[in-house]
Amino acid sequence: MATINRNYLKLPGSYLFSTIGKKVREYSEANPDKEIIRLGIGDVTKPLSGSVIEALHRSVDEMGDEETFKGYAPDLGYEFLRKVIAEKDFKERGSDISPDEIFISDGAKCDCGNIQEIFGTENRVAVCDPVYPVYVDSNVMAGRTGEYDEEAGRFKDVIYMPCREENDFAPEIPDEKADLIYLCFPNNPTGAVITKDRLQRFVDHANESGAVILYDAAYEAYISEEGVPHSIYECDGARECAIEFRSFSKTAGFTGLRLGYTVIPKDLRVDDVRLWDLWARRHGTKYNGAPYIVQRAGEAVYSEKGRKEVASQIEYYMGNAKIILDGLKSAGYSVSGGVNAPYIWLKTPDNMTSWEFFDLLLTKANVVGTPGSGFGPGGEHYFRLTAFGNREKTKEAVSRIVKMG
Amino acid sequence: MATINRNYLKLPGSYLFSTIGKKVREYSEANPDKEIIRLGIGDVTKPLSGSVIEALHRSVDEMGDEETFKGYAPDLGYEFLRKVIAEKDFKERGSDISPDEIFISDGAKCDCGNIQEIFGTENRVAVCDPVYPVYVDSNVMAGRTGEYDEEAGRFKDVIYMPCREENDFAPEIPDEKADLIYLCFPNNPTGAVITKDRLQRFVDHANESGAVILYDAAYEAYISEEGVPHSIYECDGARECAIEFRSFSKTAGFTGLRLGYTVIPKDLRVDDVRLWDLWARRHGTKYNGAPYIVQRAGEAVYSEKGRKEVASQIEYYMGNAKIILDGLKSAGYSVSGGVNAPYIWLKTPDNMTSWEFFDLLLTKANVVGTPGSGFGPGGEHYFRLTAFGNREKTKEAVSRIVKMG
Repeated sequence: MATINRNYLKLPGSYLFSTIGKKVREYSEANPDKEIIRLGIGDVTKPLSGSVIEALHRSVDEMGDEETFKGYAPDLGYEFLRKVIAEKDFKERGSDISPDEIFISDGAKCDCGNIQEIFGTENRVAVCDPVYPVYVDSNVMAGRTGEYDEEAGRFKDVIYMPCREENDFAPEIPDEKADLIYLCFPNNPTGAVITKDRLQRFVDHANESGAVILYDAAYEAYISEEGVPHSIYECDGARECAIEFRSFSKTAGFTGLRLGYTVIPKDLRVDDVRLWDLWARRHGTKYNGAPYIVQRAGEAVYSEKGRKEVASQIEYYMGNAKIILDGLKSAGYSVSGGVNAPYIWLKTPDNMTSWEFFDLLLTKANVVGTPGSGFGPGGEHYFRLTAFGNREKTKEAVSRIVKMG
Repeated sequence: MATINRNYLKLPGSYLFSTIGKKVREYSEANPDKEIIRLGIGDVTKPLSGSVIEALHRSVDEMGDEETFKGYAPDLGYEFLRKVIAEKDFKERGSDISPDEIFISDGAKCDCGNIQEIFGTENRVAVCDPVYPVYVDSNVMAGRTGEYDEEAGRFKDVIYMPCREENDFAPEIPDEKADLIYLCFPNNPTGAVITKDRLQRFVDHANESGAVILYDAAYEAYISEEGVPHSIYECDGARECAIEFRSFSKTAGFTGLRLGYTVIPKDLRVDDVRLWDLWARRHGTKYNGAPYIVQRAGEAVYSEKGRKEVASQIEYYMGNAKIILDGLKSAGYSVSGGVNAPYIWLKTPDNMTSWEFFDLLLTKANVVGTPGSGFGPGGEHYFRLTAFGNREKTKEAVSRIVKMG
């Protein structure tokens, strides 16, 4: 008799974005005359850039010709892409990462979700609170988190590292001993960054304690301020303790094209085993590579023209971020983020819960955002707005929120 | 202190296709004048068909235009693709599968590797022997198989269901109690099929015993004989006990484009939980969908023109299969497969081991195939050749093997 993985049943019933979708649908059906503006889900709206489109057309033609057709991709991904990534994302910024330490994939979400598989189930997990839910949920499924405490909104065995005003939304090293430490900077949902000093302290701590840091840098391209680390490998000793995840989703608008990569330095050993070997084995056994045409599209992002195009998309979104940030500040909201990340994080007024504020915004301003409590217990009384919308609609949304005042 | 998933260390050291690659490389370097013909790895060689290329170009243009740009795909995959699959792959063949029971993915390998996650670690796994290594390896990683017995070439807790001449290379229901039964038909590597009667017996057995059947039908498009089941859902009661995997890789040459799907009927419950819900949760948490342009390419395979093109590719490969099959038979080899599958399965002469025959073929005929022992202990003394090559080279390879005889 088969049995299910009962860890799945520990996950709270409804997925954040499904609940949002349902509430919006119901409101919309009851109020068909209202024009709703969505600043909720973090999906991009700008089309793929010219260089990317050209690379796609060119490689599609290659796939239609027997001479240039490509079947299965190399296990780690095509070298043309790994080489340009090593050069532009790491060497040019002074980090020593070789093309062979880069695993191309179909996105950082999959990699962040799957990476825990190569670790034992007895590892204790620490996460920023609030944070992107995939780190916790994938560990729930694997049985590392214990039961969910409905009232506290937390899993018994997870170490939540608070990220609040008091610490500039960047965590302290936890008192409890953590084995796997997930860090996400620029952070989703707070939009906060971590300084190099504070990141270095995490790296030192990991090397002293034998912990592994899982560093999600999916929003790296949005960093606009000097001195903010773009990669954990800017820290000394990170090659011995850290895995880094990167994504083309927000950098180049690839949410519908699917491309990302994971860096595992060959120096990173646990139990005297190279994590590189374990991840390579996982890739070889359970994955078959990102499409050739998408890897060519990724390569195009690093061309001179591609980099300019992508920079201008990011500038557009960050223009939206500034409008939201300035507008809400002027209306007296307590807001952060929006400078090195496409997310604006606001404190709900009058100590409202995140969901109360969601309902208020939906019904009074017809604006959809994301309740902070959906990102962990530390997100309660906060709310996330995203800068990925269209300029006019973003302005209109802000003006409605301000009027609602 | 972090620890690794020690189950990974139970996997035998070298991956089959890496060892083959190494041997071929070494031989090639020592004998640069020899022209080697590869009938080893099951990768296609024909380019993508005209309809697929057109659909790709068209959808790439959509991605370059703000009005038609697509970001994140729906969790299950786009409805246009799920609808046409339900209609053409199932309804037209008399199987009752709805679009909502189809989960689009980037390939059957990933789905076959990941599906075990939704089951408890205490489940006992049964596999055809020999078979595609992913089923066993992914369960090794999850800790369901016990230790590897080097001498026997088997994992202690896996139930191996022999597939040999005596049973027409289709397994009997195992005596030991299995909870998860992996079936792969048309089979990789034997090229054998299972009759509907025998498949129905597995379905009945699963429903009686509470087992779940994981049915890999990746080679379904190669079935040429009447009366061979194309889907497990042709059997009565399969909606209550079976999950099916399908792939566009071999059907339409998508090995480098990546597209597949998994069917989980909503009637399939284990521990009173719908497996559909668990897989949907897994998809939502750890996966982000196949690219929009690839899903449009998949849709094009079902157009009238697309179906004709794909059928002609398959006809080409099956022409190769016939050449290999007839040639080897005429030379006195004992061969099977090659009629409903692109794989030819031959018994090694003079009781040679699979690897001995590999070396002989490489050095005497300069032909690369795959040792049967790489697919499980039951593959020892067998050898796999694939029909995915070019016609002239396939002819040349066969003539060399015949001469070697």
